[in-house]
Amino acid sequence: MNYLPAWLRAYRPAWLAGDLTAGLIVTVMLIPQSLAYAMLAGLPPEVGLYASILPIVAYAFLGSSMTLAVGPVAVASLMTASALQPLAAAGSAEYVTLAAQLALISGVMLLAFGALRLGFLAHFLSHPVISGFITGSAVLIAVGQLKHILGVQVAGSDVLETLRGLAKALPQTQPATLALGAASLIFLLASRRYLAPVLTRLGIATKTAELMAKLAPMVAVIASTAIVAFFGLHESAGVRIVGAVPQGLPHLNLQLPGLSALGQLWLPALLITLIGFVESVSVAQSLALKRQQRIQPNRELLGLGAANLASALSGGYPVTGGFARSVVNFAAGAHTPLAGVISAALMALVISVMTGLFYYLPHAVLAATIIVAVTSLIDLHTLKEAWHYDRADALSLVATALGVVSMGVEVGVLTGVSLSLAVLVWRSSHPHMAVVGRVPGTEHFRNIARHQVQTVPGLLALRVDESLIFANATVLEDRIEALLAQDASVRRLLLICSAVNQIDSTALGVLTQLERSLAARGIALCLAEVKGPVWDRVSSTELGRRLEGKVFLSTHAAFGQENPD
Amino acid sequence: MNYLPAWLRAYRPAWLAGDLTAGLIVTVMLIPQSLAYAMLAGLPPEVGLYASILPIVAYAFLGSSMTLAVGPVAVASLMTASALQPLAAAGSAEYVTLAAQLALISGVMLLAFGALRLGFLAHFLSHPVISGFITGSAVLIAVGQLKHILGVQVAGSDVLETLRGLAKALPQTQPATLALGAASLIFLLASRRYLAPVLTRLGIATKTAELMAKLAPMVAVIASTAIVAFFGLHESAGVRIVGAVPQGLPHLNLQLPGLSALGQLWLPALLITLIGFVESVSVAQSLALKRQQRIQPNRELLGLGAANLASALSGGYPVTGGFARSVVNFAAGAHTPLAGVISAALMALVISVMTGLFYYLPHAVLAATIIVAVTSLIDLHTLKEAWHYDRADALSLVATALGVVSMGVEVGVLTGVSLSLAVLVWRSSHPHMAVVGRVPGTEHFRNIARHQVQTVPGLLALRVDESLIFANATVLEDRIEALLAQDASVRRLLLICSAVNQIDSTALGVLTQLERSLAARGIALCLAEVKGPVWDRVSSTELGRRLEGKVFLSTHAAFGQENPD
Repeated sequence: MNYLPAWLRAYRPAWLAGDLTAGLIVTVMLIPQSLAYAMLAGLPPEVGLYASILPIVAYAFLGSSMTLAVGPVAVASLMTASALQPLAAAGSAEYVTLAAQLALISGVMLLAFGALRLGFLAHFLSHPVISGFITGSAVLIAVGQLKHILGVQVAGSDVLETLRGLAKALPQTQPATLALGAASLIFLLASRRYLAPVLTRLGIATKTAELMAKLAPMVAVIASTAIVAFFGLHESAGVRIVGAVPQGLPHLNLQLPGLSALGQLWLPALLITLIGFVESVSVAQSLALKRQQRIQPNRELLGLGAANLASALSGGYPVTGGFARSVVNFAAGAHTPLAGVISAALMALVISVMTGLFYYLPHAVLAATIIVAVTSLIDLHTLKEAWHYDRADALSLVATALGVVSMGVEVGVLTGVSLSLAVLVWRSSHPHMAVVGRVPGTEHFRNIARHQVQTVPGLLALRVDESLIFANATVLEDRIEALLAQDASVRRLLLICSAVNQIDSTALGVLTQLERSLAARGIALCLAEVKGPVWDRVSSTELGRRLEGKVFLSTHAAFGQENPD
Repeated sequence: MNYLPAWLRAYRPAWLAGDLTAGLIVTVMLIPQSLAYAMLAGLPPEVGLYASILPIVAYAFLGSSMTLAVGPVAVASLMTASALQPLAAAGSAEYVTLAAQLALISGVMLLAFGALRLGFLAHFLSHPVISGFITGSAVLIAVGQLKHILGVQVAGSDVLETLRGLAKALPQTQPATLALGAASLIFLLASRRYLAPVLTRLGIATKTAELMAKLAPMVAVIASTAIVAFFGLHESAGVRIVGAVPQGLPHLNLQLPGLSALGQLWLPALLITLIGFVESVSVAQSLALKRQQRIQPNRELLGLGAANLASALSGGYPVTGGFARSVVNFAAGAHTPLAGVISAALMALVISVMTGLFYYLPHAVLAATIIVAVTSLIDLHTLKEAWHYDRADALSLVATALGVVSMGVEVGVLTGVSLSLAVLVWRSSHPHMAVVGRVPGTEHFRNIARHQVQTVPGLLALRVDESLIFANATVLEDRIEALLAQDASVRRLLLICSAVNQIDSTALGVLTQLERSLAARGIALCLAEVKGPVWDRVSSTELGRRLEGKVFLSTHAAFGQENPD
């Protein structure tokens, strides 16, 4: 057996140029992002750099996407901060250890989900919930960074509190910090909108121009670092800077969480795991499809799990596939995960010899790069679409976003998931049902309320357009009893099960009782168009035995038994 | 408008004999039950009696069942104890006030659910969850009563802890208490099994004999009270007795809960409300069907809500429809809620003049009546059936029961509900899908893996037997991509939607992206047999516009477009 991944065994020299370019460009993007997201997570800057080396290599060997760029991302950084801030002082040694343990737990969960085929847990998160969650998180992150732009100290656990704190601290604004922060914000926003078109007009190929525009954060970082260093703004004007970043590769070290840490970290780790997984797979999927490639969700669980274990091992924190970074990686011509390995090697080089260059980098500029990055995550399009298509989904989205903004990421996402499930049960508990008759001269049966159809005296044919489960079993019973109360002549009740994909044991119990109660009143319960897998299970029950001879392959056959007069 | 209930306006003199007999028999059952369940709930005995007067009258005027007997029940009593014990000392004035407030909140919830048509919330509880909950509660209750049988003091929040405490306290067992308790237990168990057959053999009609057997608890109560009083066992042998029960009707008084009490009581109140409602309706329904009557769930919400408000108003605690009591009421010939009103009047008489008779009643005998009553609630039949029919449901049942026994009623039922929902999502996330072809010479289309069918080159027809929602949208996408990867010749992908009862916005998003991605690869996405309500919504979306001309009424029509060679 060969332990090398398939892409490496089949590597073609022609791919090397693309992988090298992409690796280089992603590194230039990754450096400011790693520092900024570590700050967002409440961690020392080097932790962000550590999380950008080994995890990428681990994913390269085990993941299934050719172009996903794994590393620190905004939402997982926010979730890390939100999980750890109640447990330890941000930036303390204990906090750093807990962050690595969070990555460890998340990694173990990802691997366990892969092994136990529990990937379906990710399906608990509907698009509206994820969209609401990300939009809410983006607002929370952006508002939380404003203090760095203003150069003031503000604590606040929710958006309103933070905004109130900012308003109060406004008089303490540091002019130099604000100037650097605001200039970076304007530069980054302008670059995002106008740089690529301008470069294109200057004769640069569109694709190259777009990639160059993505490097604007690095330009802001270099320019602001130079300004602060040259004018000594950190001393003369109180501009907060990154300061000394330890030089050298991370030490490999795995500190297992104790039982009490496990009790406090498992829920945030689960949410980080599920949201990270869903996001990664959706990014990886959309990129893979552009090249007719396939993503294997179980391989993704493995790859992301290994990446998080590697992050924990090398003093990092939870990582996942980043959206912006993966798109750039793809656009820059990455063919295989070798691009990631190259990027990891470059990051290792940076951390081994160049961390001194980050000394004068101002927090305000990192905050500006975060704000610009997360505002692109605010997604009103999905809300608009959901509002037109499905109000219940739109409400789930808004409730999740408001929950995140007002009560934090965990309560927000749990609110959203609960609402999605409530909507699922609510919908199941309001099944569409129709009394049907035969369209004259055909084998088609339609709603008697909408069409001119023939009925058979004494036969009531009811089509149920939903699986019969605990959520709607009694609703069906109520509807049947109401119909029977209207028409005393009914002698056969035909349930048409063409849309019944399952009958759970609650519904089986209700049907069994219904059949007996109907039989006592001289009414026969019949079924038609029962699906194979459904009948396989029902046939061996008491209900199945009692229904013998009353189950028809088609509605036509059930109607045909009696001659319409 | 006439404010008298329909049953009273249409009352026939012929019904009076049955209602009188039933009212009398139910009262004889209700007296020991009221005292015992109050003890179980940690409340003074008179609270159980109070909860057996006005609530019955309120239900009689507003409920829809003719024979449901409302009052204190075992499971709601256990839930009351579990909710209040962390908040106040059992039996204290504060505890009694909180119990009434629990009834008040539950009553308001029931009325609100009725008004807002939120009865569907009860559908969150599947049969397996309810069965597991009741079985677990019965075990918890029975084990909790053993200390009264032994005459020892034991505290324990779960079954294991209680059993350990009992084992430790065994040497302190009071012989006289144990003798009374064990004798009552044996007498009650023997009566339940053998009394009715013996009485029948003595020439008494079967129905009468069965009713007489139900009065065994009253016999145990009278006999043990007489023995304790005669021998002075409460003084000579330390047998715990009920003691002085205040004489006189309850004072009407409504103390509204404060915000902090509301915060602590809402969740237990919600669980009591939902479980009480589900249980009541299922008892009422099964009795009503025997006489071709109907239960109106919304009227039940009203009736039970009013009963709980009446209980709160008269110093009681949460009440609901009792299973055993309602069956006896029905069997004793109750025709209308007048039986309940008679029973309430008799209870009022008892509490006005006869509470002195309960003075010497030993706790051990009340505990024996509780144990015998709840062991009949242990339901292994449902577990056995669910195990054969549906393992996932059986696991939900067992998990709920174990959760109740090991972690208490609230955690147990929340575990069960979460599991039911997880099963719902899990099932939805594993939809049955089949590639189909035409059965030669027909308009029928069947699974190509199971049947000899004709296919059309370049056309892949996939039938999905599940609604398309967030839980399975990506599963469908994965399956389609896997099928396409196997067959490069596909030019049209036909989704047969005959069993698709809804498409939520997550699935819509996935389908929209899929259609675009397929189109880019030269493959047309087509739909067939889309249900009216589903298409009504999809047609106005981007996907709907892009699918124009590719939506077929039937699979036959979609196949027909191309000529099979």
